[in-house]
Amino acid sequence: MHLSAAGHEVTVVDNFLRRAMATELGSESLTPIQSLGERVRAWREVSGHEIGFFHGDLADAQFVDELLVGTRPDGIVHYGEQPSAPYSMIDRRHAVQTQRNNVEGTLNVLYAIRDLAPETHLVKLGTMGEYGTPGIDIEEGFIEIEHNGRTDTLPFPKLPGSMYHLTKVHDSHNIHFACRIWNVRATDLNQGVVYGIHTDETRLDERLCTRFDYDEVLGTALNRFCVQAVVGYPLTVYGKGGQTRGFLNIVDTIQCVRLALENPAQGGEFRVFNQFTEQFSVNDLATTVHRVAAAKGINVVVDHVVDPRIEAQEHYYNATHTKLFELGLRAHLLTDEVVGDLLDTIQRYKDRILLGPIAPKTKWDPRA
Amino acid sequence: MHLSAAGHEVTVVDNFLRRAMATELGSESLTPIQSLGERVRAWREVSGHEIGFFHGDLADAQFVDELLVGTRPDGIVHYGEQPSAPYSMIDRRHAVQTQRNNVEGTLNVLYAIRDLAPETHLVKLGTMGEYGTPGIDIEEGFIEIEHNGRTDTLPFPKLPGSMYHLTKVHDSHNIHFACRIWNVRATDLNQGVVYGIHTDETRLDERLCTRFDYDEVLGTALNRFCVQAVVGYPLTVYGKGGQTRGFLNIVDTIQCVRLALENPAQGGEFRVFNQFTEQFSVNDLATTVHRVAAAKGINVVVDHVVDPRIEAQEHYYNATHTKLFELGLRAHLLTDEVVGDLLDTIQRYKDRILLGPIAPKTKWDPRA
Repeated sequence: MHLSAAGHEVTVVDNFLRRAMATELGSESLTPIQSLGERVRAWREVSGHEIGFFHGDLADAQFVDELLVGTRPDGIVHYGEQPSAPYSMIDRRHAVQTQRNNVEGTLNVLYAIRDLAPETHLVKLGTMGEYGTPGIDIEEGFIEIEHNGRTDTLPFPKLPGSMYHLTKVHDSHNIHFACRIWNVRATDLNQGVVYGIHTDETRLDERLCTRFDYDEVLGTALNRFCVQAVVGYPLTVYGKGGQTRGFLNIVDTIQCVRLALENPAQGGEFRVFNQFTEQFSVNDLATTVHRVAAAKGINVVVDHVVDPRIEAQEHYYNATHTKLFELGLRAHLLTDEVVGDLLDTIQRYKDRILLGPIAPKTKWDPRA
Repeated sequence: MHLSAAGHEVTVVDNFLRRAMATELGSESLTPIQSLGERVRAWREVSGHEIGFFHGDLADAQFVDELLVGTRPDGIVHYGEQPSAPYSMIDRRHAVQTQRNNVEGTLNVLYAIRDLAPETHLVKLGTMGEYGTPGIDIEEGFIEIEHNGRTDTLPFPKLPGSMYHLTKVHDSHNIHFACRIWNVRATDLNQGVVYGIHTDETRLDERLCTRFDYDEVLGTALNRFCVQAVVGYPLTVYGKGGQTRGFLNIVDTIQCVRLALENPAQGGEFRVFNQFTEQFSVNDLATTVHRVAAAKGINVVVDHVVDPRIEAQEHYYNATHTKLFELGLRAHLLTDEVVGDLLDTIQRYKDRILLGPIAPKTKWDPRA
């Protein structure tokens, strides 16, 4: 909708994997998300713009080929992956499914670009989680290394923390190869943790709302804490809570995608942007939610539960994120007002909240 | 056979992928390799040792589970992957097949180890090709990086040069993760290019011979050059021939595997050995074959054909390879005598050589 509103001709492709995952997990979007057909109709009604729509799967090579021949896109925004770390860690079947869906889907897109639309700019959703938590500053995709008197700029080493994050690392290597060998142009958006619920477009009509997941598998930290605050569930800080990550508002994620598309990579270029605006620890988030909720008369308890993940709970973290700002990103930072607005919106949907899927239960090691 | 002769109890698992690939490619092993059942029988007859044998596929999770429950191995030597870079570059279907076979197979092994045999030492065949040709010295898996005043030891950055090499990079990340998170013990053998035809065991009886591929898809550089020399085909140096890699004799590959097995990694340790003994450029190999063949009265022409790959044809290359020597590796270096012996052996099988599959034809970019 953001791209369509900006005057771009947009076609959406979806296999509804995320809806199927929510059904499997017994969870549901907080927001009453409509069918894609209904959202496309509402957008036409509200904006006067037409968005094309195909139901299909990137794992289906023939579908991908026909899609590219039919649409001849200037750019592809590739968000079509299984997006949840806990989901990928449920068991072997979910790990292999994540592997196959994400990596083979991206391979199919790369081959279709090579053979059918070689000028297309691929804008691929990566994740800051590819880097893990190294003891040195994180750069944007590449790092200059001096070693034994020689120097080269090489891919930044990766320490991904889940089977899902591993698939994103695999994608990055595969896309980099396609750029080097086939002259594909690509931007890898290593996105931080997204929070928030509304964009300028979703505010226009309730039928346009996007998903808002708050369960332990699909929900992200700040969104989950706000839902927990509203229903009186103790905030589930994992372990010591020193886990630090890059965060950004949902409004900025779509701004970043537009900036990447409107300033495409060169042929053969594999460009990596670290897509976040601020760093926070999990404890920072819990403290903020506690403070903002208290000002609204909501009493929040912060709980330090046993960390179901295997990860560093206290660590060094400092990641570069300047390239998107250089392209013009205007950040919407995390203020108390933003958190307050989020809590208010969640309050309006409070009756829809399911308590069952909130508690963390997917363990990184089932033997633990 | 080498492990069996050394007193280890050995079970072999094969899905005969490589035989199927040779059939698909219209090529055939130079050596008249027998069925696995016949080789097992011959080994029993010659050595008195029994080798167990299962026909199965690592992509079949249930098979892998049953295998580990049935054998309870101290170590797993995992060579069960599609091993050819050109094969993976034929087209999308072969790329995806390589991806699925290699990465999912290894995931199945990792989960089976975690759940059913957590003390098992995984000895996984990687490749020096994972590193590509960076402008700095290549270390064994990890490199200490100093950056902005801080230091950490991180995975060595990878620049793999084919879809096959990419799968090995993915495997390395997946195995490293399993070691970090599940306490799996693993050794990644980043092997150089293997040459040679005989081991101490295959010399005992012709029925014990191993494969020797010389076609453009399955054959490796030196082996191919020796076959080309014997049949009077100009040596197919790709482009400038400055491509430099690590090499080792087939006798040393099995020595390395035994050394890794007999000196296992610790629980949680992901150990990487660069498994080669010497570095050569393609031009070095062509010069050596030319010289040794000439001494036998064979006139060899060296041709510089258009490189079907997309790769650096002249580049810096210096790779560390000390860890296997520290474990006791005694290298069999590439002497004129070794090349002469190889030429003599190939002469004996000369009538079996097929000329069709020798010429390079699999291109890294079919549009080129």
